[in-house]
Amino acid sequence: MVTRPAVPAVSPAPDIQMDSASERIARQFAFLIECDRLKDIFRQTLNTGSLRNENDAEHSWALCLFAMTLAEHSNVPIDLPRVLKMLLIHDIVEIDAGDTFAYDTARMADQHEREARAADRIFGLLPADQAASFRALWDEFEAKETAEARFATTVDRLQPMLLNCLTEGVSWRRNGVTHTQVLARNAPVADGSATLWSHICGIVEEAVRAGHLPA
Amino acid sequence: MVTRPAVPAVSPAPDIQMDSASERIARQFAFLIECDRLKDIFRQTLNTGSLRNENDAEHSWALCLFAMTLAEHSNVPIDLPRVLKMLLIHDIVEIDAGDTFAYDTARMADQHEREARAADRIFGLLPADQAASFRALWDEFEAKETAEARFATTVDRLQPMLLNCLTEGVSWRRNGVTHTQVLARNAPVADGSATLWSHICGIVEEAVRAGHLPA
Repeated sequence: MVTRPAVPAVSPAPDIQMDSASERIARQFAFLIECDRLKDIFRQTLNTGSLRNENDAEHSWALCLFAMTLAEHSNVPIDLPRVLKMLLIHDIVEIDAGDTFAYDTARMADQHEREARAADRIFGLLPADQAASFRALWDEFEAKETAEARFATTVDRLQPMLLNCLTEGVSWRRNGVTHTQVLARNAPVADGSATLWSHICGIVEEAVRAGHLPA
Repeated sequence: MVTRPAVPAVSPAPDIQMDSASERIARQFAFLIECDRLKDIFRQTLNTGSLRNENDAEHSWALCLFAMTLAEHSNVPIDLPRVLKMLLIHDIVEIDAGDTFAYDTARMADQHEREARAADRIFGLLPADQAASFRALWDEFEAKETAEARFATTVDRLQPMLLNCLTEGVSWRRNGVTHTQVLARNAPVADGSATLWSHICGIVEEAVRAGHLPA
């Protein structure tokens, strides 16, 4: 039986004087080890194969693949690498703050505050310059003002819609979500890509016709 | 009970004439839906939190985060976005070919052939131009000749070494792997980053001293 070490084995002992390169790597490894916990944060959406709940690490990978594959449908030209970096780190705050279900409006009230505290702690594990640049990416994603943040949001909403349609809307029905709510919640897909919004709306309509999502 | 549809719901019916934009999206969605299966391909390495086996989707996300965080330690300047794209798609072939354990030399003999067939089929789901560009990225990763492919390989070897050290070497010991084998198998880490190789070798030595990896 293996127990998770309380202190990561690669943290520098505080009494050891290290050169700055070693200290940078130690901080970077401490951050990466902490981020491994994202694999244990589960979402409401089901995966299509196993029909178990998707976790945030899988979700983050899937969003990057969606962005890489679908970037040509962005309403405006985007810097794809910036979108990918944003998506890689956008959910890391949920290690502390947990996943907030997209239709849980009560819990969404203090979501940003909880997540901002998590961002302080987790990005703060990195060397200061990287902590600042990763935090800036996360703030940009949250603000949804740049074309890159908008396209990142497009795939972040599109992918769960698609997974829900492919798993007979179980997660929607389990949570009493209606077609009207799905359209209202996910309308920001169109801010990044009118084409993808039109396409996914057609797929969602099929789910409604099939009885997988109440009108 | 939900059953996975035999044919993805968003595939175009063959008798429907579509405009080229819709057909592109339909092919892109068919590819993305197929790739969802990567979440069900499990590796030998354990995650640090749950101590369950890591899957390929989580692994691909983790490698991208490693690359983004550790790129400054590359031996030579690299195009990080190219590394990220390579890492996002490098394991997709395992949907058909399965995961080949890094120390299973018998099964490694025909690994590339099995994976190349998988690449033909899975990247072939995409529109032809994207199928070619994704396949070129995968071929580049496999050939390990460019600086970007070498750094992608560096993180692909480094991350499981680190996870193994953090989970008391269970996966190594379960498979009878020794310190000598770990060093021989993972020496390509140094081709991408001598600094990271030196750092991870120190962590592996701690694992040997702790009795988690036989000399």
